[in-house]
Amino acid sequence: MPEQERMKQVLQAYVDGFAEGDAAAVAGLFADDATIEDPVGNPPISGRAAIDEFYANAVGSGAKLSLDGPIRGSHGNSAAMAFTIEVPGVVRIRAIEVMTFDDDGKVTEMRAYWGPDDVEQ
Amino acid sequence: MPEQERMKQVLQAYVDGFAEGDAAAVAGLFADDATIEDPVGNPPISGRAAIDEFYANAVGSGAKLSLDGPIRGSHGNSAAMAFTIEVPGVVRIRAIEVMTFDDDGKVTEMRAYWGPDDVEQ
Repeated sequence: MPEQERMKQVLQAYVDGFAEGDAAAVAGLFADDATIEDPVGNPPISGRAAIDEFYANAVGSGAKLSLDGPIRGSHGNSAAMAFTIEVPGVVRIRAIEVMTFDDDGKVTEMRAYWGPDDVEQ
Repeated sequence: MPEQERMKQVLQAYVDGFAEGDAAAVAGLFADDATIEDPVGNPPISGRAAIDEFYANAVGSGAKLSLDGPIRGSHGNSAAMAFTIEVPGVVRIRAIEVMTFDDDGKVTEMRAYWGPDDVEQ
C-alpha cells in the first residue's frame, strides 16, 4: 500500500499536469492497465492507449483544475479530491475524483463523480 | 436509478441530520442492508442495527459537517461530497464521502475517504 503522502502527491501532480498542459505527465500517473470511469455511470475505458488518448483530449482542451479543499487520503490504497474543472469560456464542471493505487504508487482506477447538473456551459 | 436531485437531497439531509442532532434521521437515509466503510480501508459495517449504532455514536458525539463545495452527482446511481466534520474542541476530520443508491432513493453503500493525515486533534 502506498504512503498517504505519496497518493496525495500523485493527485496534486494530476492537478499540476493540467495546469502545465502536460498530458503525458498526467497519463503517466496511471498504471498501463488502469480503468477510468469519467463520469461514473458511463462505460469505463482502460488500457494505456485509451488513457493516453483520454488525457491528450482532456489536457489539450485547455481545461484547468482548482481544488475545493485539501486532497483526502484513506486508511487503504485510495485518495480523493473535490475540484472544479474549467475550460475557460466553454464549460465548468464540479467533480469529485476517487483514485485507487497499486503498490508502486500508480493509479489503477479513477472514478469521477459529476452529473448533468454539475455542468455549467 | 434515482434522480440526481433526489440523491443530492439525501446527502444534504445527511449534513442537516448532524446539524440537528437527529441520528435517527441520518440512519433512516440508509437501506436496511446498506454497507458503510468509514474510513475506506477499515472493515465495513452493514445492516440496520450496526448502522443505527454507528450514527447514534457519530451524531451523539456532537459532530457537525460543513461542506467544502456543492454536492456532486454522477451519470449513475452515486453522489459524493467533500466536507469537514468537527467535534468542537475535540477533533476535525476532512473527508469525502461517496454514496450509492437503490431505486427507492435509499443509500446502499457509503464510503468515507479520510486518512490519518486528514485528522486534526
